[in-house]
Amino acid sequence: MTIRIAVDGMGGDNAPGDIVKGTVDGARRYGVDIVLVGPQNVMQRELAKHDTSGLKIDIVHTDEYLVEGEHPAYALRKKRKASIVVATKLVKSGDADAVASAGPTGGVVASALQFLGAVEGISRPVVGGAFLGFTPNMLMMDMGGNVDCKPHQFLDFAIVGTVYARKMLGIENPTVALLSIGAEEGKGNAVVQESYPIFKKSGLNFIGQVEGYDIPLGKANVIICDGFVGNIIVKFGESLGKLIAGYLENKLKGKLPDADIKEITDYMVHATNAADVRGGGPLWAIDGVACVAHGRAIATEFALVIEQAKIAVEKDIVGSLKSELIEVRSKIGDEVYK
Amino acid sequence: MTIRIAVDGMGGDNAPGDIVKGTVDGARRYGVDIVLVGPQNVMQRELAKHDTSGLKIDIVHTDEYLVEGEHPAYALRKKRKASIVVATKLVKSGDADAVASAGPTGGVVASALQFLGAVEGISRPVVGGAFLGFTPNMLMMDMGGNVDCKPHQFLDFAIVGTVYARKMLGIENPTVALLSIGAEEGKGNAVVQESYPIFKKSGLNFIGQVEGYDIPLGKANVIICDGFVGNIIVKFGESLGKLIAGYLENKLKGKLPDADIKEITDYMVHATNAADVRGGGPLWAIDGVACVAHGRAIATEFALVIEQAKIAVEKDIVGSLKSELIEVRSKIGDEVYK
Repeated sequence: MTIRIAVDGMGGDNAPGDIVKGTVDGARRYGVDIVLVGPQNVMQRELAKHDTSGLKIDIVHTDEYLVEGEHPAYALRKKRKASIVVATKLVKSGDADAVASAGPTGGVVASALQFLGAVEGISRPVVGGAFLGFTPNMLMMDMGGNVDCKPHQFLDFAIVGTVYARKMLGIENPTVALLSIGAEEGKGNAVVQESYPIFKKSGLNFIGQVEGYDIPLGKANVIICDGFVGNIIVKFGESLGKLIAGYLENKLKGKLPDADIKEITDYMVHATNAADVRGGGPLWAIDGVACVAHGRAIATEFALVIEQAKIAVEKDIVGSLKSELIEVRSKIGDEVYK
Repeated sequence: MTIRIAVDGMGGDNAPGDIVKGTVDGARRYGVDIVLVGPQNVMQRELAKHDTSGLKIDIVHTDEYLVEGEHPAYALRKKRKASIVVATKLVKSGDADAVASAGPTGGVVASALQFLGAVEGISRPVVGGAFLGFTPNMLMMDMGGNVDCKPHQFLDFAIVGTVYARKMLGIENPTVALLSIGAEEGKGNAVVQESYPIFKKSGLNFIGQVEGYDIPLGKANVIICDGFVGNIIVKFGESLGKLIAGYLENKLKGKLPDADIKEITDYMVHATNAADVRGGGPLWAIDGVACVAHGRAIATEFALVIEQAKIAVEKDIVGSLKSELIEVRSKIGDEVYK
């Protein structure tokens, strides 16, 4: 049966134009059916700009949608028929296999939590993924709102990362490491020290601790930290990349053709920008496939998120995560979760 | 009275050659007297290679010295006449105004703690400073071993950073910020949230929270984080800089003269290497001036550390820190320190 993806046609800075274009391109390239959610006339107008022959693209009408800057929970209460809500509910009801949106991210997360729920034993979605273009097979978890973590949350991040690497990146036996300030067990803050023996028992492919120096080297496929550390690192790297791009632009001006300079500076910016590395991906620990693209996504990037949604459904990431959670937790024992 | 600096002639990867050369250069350039500590014959042999006319350089003989890889505390017990010990004790006895060494850092820290002690109310030295060549007036504190911090430690870091910026960088009213995952009060982990109101009361030039993105932009003169976060950021940046240097070397090969490529890649490496940005500096929260250069310091870099030691003595950083600690603590109230 063809995979069917509900698309929030109004989500993202470049909606509806780029979102609809990316959806049409993605539908053709990756062979998926689409339910496009948004104002009927707007969606029809945008679809009419593209060749949709042979594609199955239904429209589900709604006039409401979220905008950047609204408080997610408040916006969801006020706009009960927001496009992201309607699209997410299509997954809940079984009318779609996945939902894809270019944001606002807070709204996608809130909708997913409210209408699909989190998998058992996890309270908040895990935000993570590849964030350096130099090492696209290195995931860092968490980069989001999970701060002041307990060891069992670190373990959850590691399980999520392992399933992510295995299913989405095709890495058979992903290596897992704790991010710390020294390689030896015993070095680090309290949560790292408490997590180490638990990770050793987990049955995951745990290779010990890595340092900040090891991150760009991709010393592990899955690097575990709390969302405070992860967020700071990702944003620091992004900012440093832009700063270096600016330095290089100045330094190379007149010495190389402009196009060559642009190639180099563009690469600096993109390779250090988490949102650009894979353009987006599934929210993790949600009991359903909800994919979020970065807010600035253009058509080509949104098409890649359509692909990610398809892979996530095909590879049954939700079922895989649930069984991996059960398996690892059985090795660890309940007391860690108390 | 001329400032007199005790130099550990045997500390560092490039000792004694580069250390003695840097000391002679520094003594001449910055007009300081020197007590050179190390094996008499080795020190004399090295001094003989340079023009020391008109300089006041005494030698204090000792045969022992620390080497990289020894456990600092253990090494200090075993080698009671290690050059760093003898040099540090010269400060304690008043025979020198400052000590300078290129390491091992652990040994310099341990000697300073044991023979000079920490200033009141601080249990461990604060390791921090400028770490990005792009923003040499932005200090980050702590980058070292202070993990799992309490708000009063954050406040101590901020006081140290303020004195550092004021005395060593000449910034009159340094801005101070808490590193977090959002600019608004209330965003961040527990210690950041608890620290915020304390910082507001401190009388320091507190400008609120900054994000990872703001670090390379130098949004504050003094950025406060725990040593876990600081260490990871510094090492991540260093590694990313080297990775980018490698990428650029490849990318520019044949398109630019080799010397131009080398200039650019060298800058990438140095501008992202904390140890290279200022070549070293005083240990903070020590009750005396003890300056540590990075282990790989060459003569020109060690000469700069001699300068730093001179400035630290001239500007009375220890006295300034003590009075700033008293002043800020009086505004905050004792309960924060319990």
